[in-house]
Amino acid sequence: MALAFATAVSFKQVQPVSAPRANPRVVLTARRPQRTAAARRVTMTITSSAKLIDGKAIAETIRQELKAEVDELKAKHGGKTPGLAVVLVGERKDSQTYVRNKKKACEEVGIASFGTDLPETASEDEVLKVVAAYNADPAVHGILVQLPLPKHINEQKVLDAISIEKDVDGFHPLNIGALAMRGRDPLFVPCTPKGCLELLKRSGVQLAGKKAAVVGRSNIVGMPAALLLQREDATVTVIHSRTPDAQKICAEADIIIAACGRAEMVGGDWVKPGAAVIDVGINAVDDPSAKRGYRLVGDVDFAAASERASHITPVPGGVGPMTIAMLLRNCVDGATRTFAAQA
Amino acid sequence: MALAFATAVSFKQVQPVSAPRANPRVVLTARRPQRTAAARRVTMTITSSAKLIDGKAIAETIRQELKAEVDELKAKHGGKTPGLAVVLVGERKDSQTYVRNKKKACEEVGIASFGTDLPETASEDEVLKVVAAYNADPAVHGILVQLPLPKHINEQKVLDAISIEKDVDGFHPLNIGALAMRGRDPLFVPCTPKGCLELLKRSGVQLAGKKAAVVGRSNIVGMPAALLLQREDATVTVIHSRTPDAQKICAEADIIIAACGRAEMVGGDWVKPGAAVIDVGINAVDDPSAKRGYRLVGDVDFAAASERASHITPVPGGVGPMTIAMLLRNCVDGATRTFAAQA
Repeated sequence: MALAFATAVSFKQVQPVSAPRANPRVVLTARRPQRTAAARRVTMTITSSAKLIDGKAIAETIRQELKAEVDELKAKHGGKTPGLAVVLVGERKDSQTYVRNKKKACEEVGIASFGTDLPETASEDEVLKVVAAYNADPAVHGILVQLPLPKHINEQKVLDAISIEKDVDGFHPLNIGALAMRGRDPLFVPCTPKGCLELLKRSGVQLAGKKAAVVGRSNIVGMPAALLLQREDATVTVIHSRTPDAQKICAEADIIIAACGRAEMVGGDWVKPGAAVIDVGINAVDDPSAKRGYRLVGDVDFAAASERASHITPVPGGVGPMTIAMLLRNCVDGATRTFAAQA
Repeated sequence: MALAFATAVSFKQVQPVSAPRANPRVVLTARRPQRTAAARRVTMTITSSAKLIDGKAIAETIRQELKAEVDELKAKHGGKTPGLAVVLVGERKDSQTYVRNKKKACEEVGIASFGTDLPETASEDEVLKVVAAYNADPAVHGILVQLPLPKHINEQKVLDAISIEKDVDGFHPLNIGALAMRGRDPLFVPCTPKGCLELLKRSGVQLAGKKAAVVGRSNIVGMPAALLLQREDATVTVIHSRTPDAQKICAEADIIIAACGRAEMVGGDWVKPGAAVIDVGINAVDDPSAKRGYRLVGDVDFAAASERASHITPVPGGVGPMTIAMLLRNCVDGATRTFAAQA
């Protein structure tokens, strides 16, 4: 699952290595692009110690597994398919793209997708009615309300209205409560942190008995990621804006999940040699040399961190593709439970 | 609120101090009792740096505050009083004592107490019916099912049946979920961890920007204590049985909440000089010199820890009295919300 680092450096700029060294290391920098042919050649022949966790490849594997599962479900339950309903309110371009990608991903694995697009001016009641209809619809096993909602709509109220049996985003407080409590199991776990854990597990990273630092404490990534790691018997510290010595805490961790939303905040000296690093961030930073005038970087200084980490995710192509894969996973899990209860 | 240490050492054994020292410290040991009159005299004249957090006194203050609040509520709402219902299943002596103490505490502050005692052989359905009746009873603002329940009864099912508006123990997953999530507020917070935070706050211990170690991850203390500390902007690490270097993590913390249920596990060298230490444990250890053949100790080595801590709770008389005080607090809060909604 984890590819050797050198196989995937093409999306990063590489400094030329002037002379062969006794103990050669890949020297990467995302800050000063100097992509020469010589540099690229050197990159392909030497390897850093970090294994790249290829989220795109792992997500593709998971989709294949899900496709097979969906086929099996259909065969077993008279042609019934899992169904996902996506509710979109307003015309945000980014949200439209996310929704389109989710629907496309559903189709590819055989999940039926339903959708309701409401105008920006839709009332809270109208949104709640749509959710209620999907709650009642036996063809729908997962309901996803694309966030953010327009400001006049109470997000919590809408999320709480989703039946927890169909809460494939895992944001319902009942699912979060069950995630926090020992002896309970949530019906669904939020997709992005679930994807982070899946990447670690499929890369053979041990979690039990290890120290983990989660940078960021958002409801959708940091907090549930910390709860998930703790469920796996890791010892977890949650770092946030009020943490005085974040670097020191990170530097003692065997596992880092960076989800603070600040470009390259986790520097190389934040990474303990041999640590596994999962980078959830996607930040656009100005780059006049890039075609679009910007490039995407994570919350981790990838170049520096990959010299010390045992495993690391790239941005893009790391956690990103896993979020949708986990959404599909949750949707199939929900349908499987429903079909089993009906059988 | 916090009393100087020397005023409350009477329940601990004190070693004689042979000669005056330039910088005298109280040397305490709970292991080798050598209570001489001379030792007691010395104790009263020198002080350690640790301030004793007197949970008994703080709990008493809170009860007085609650009594005044209940009187005010009555006056404002035509004589209506807050009501707590306690459900006890079986004949466990310890549970009977706890229930008796809770009811007595209710009476003292003017909360009406209701109770249903069911035999050990009661069915799950019978227990659920009692809970449903209290859910529907407008005179009841808090419902407490005394744990543990007999083995044939599904504890989760019973706890989940309590209306979250009356969940004064704060154990409902909806309340725990809200506790974990930013931007949400639980209706009730579990009493013991709530009491720990109250002790810290009333002792003037700063939480925001500080490092905290919570030893133990139980649903009723460790986990909610960690979530509470994080809500106060502390940086929290949860230590558990699979944590490799618990001592080192604790020794870096400004705040320690010990709730692991192991007698004196948190030793003196686990405490950073100046840290605040909250000891949730109550463990009986053999002591032939004691009248009953045992004595009660916490999860912290009190004697050693109090030489380094800035603040420390004793056992007994620290967290213990706070649990019931917070139960009363939750009950009054529940009634206040209900009365306000009815007004």
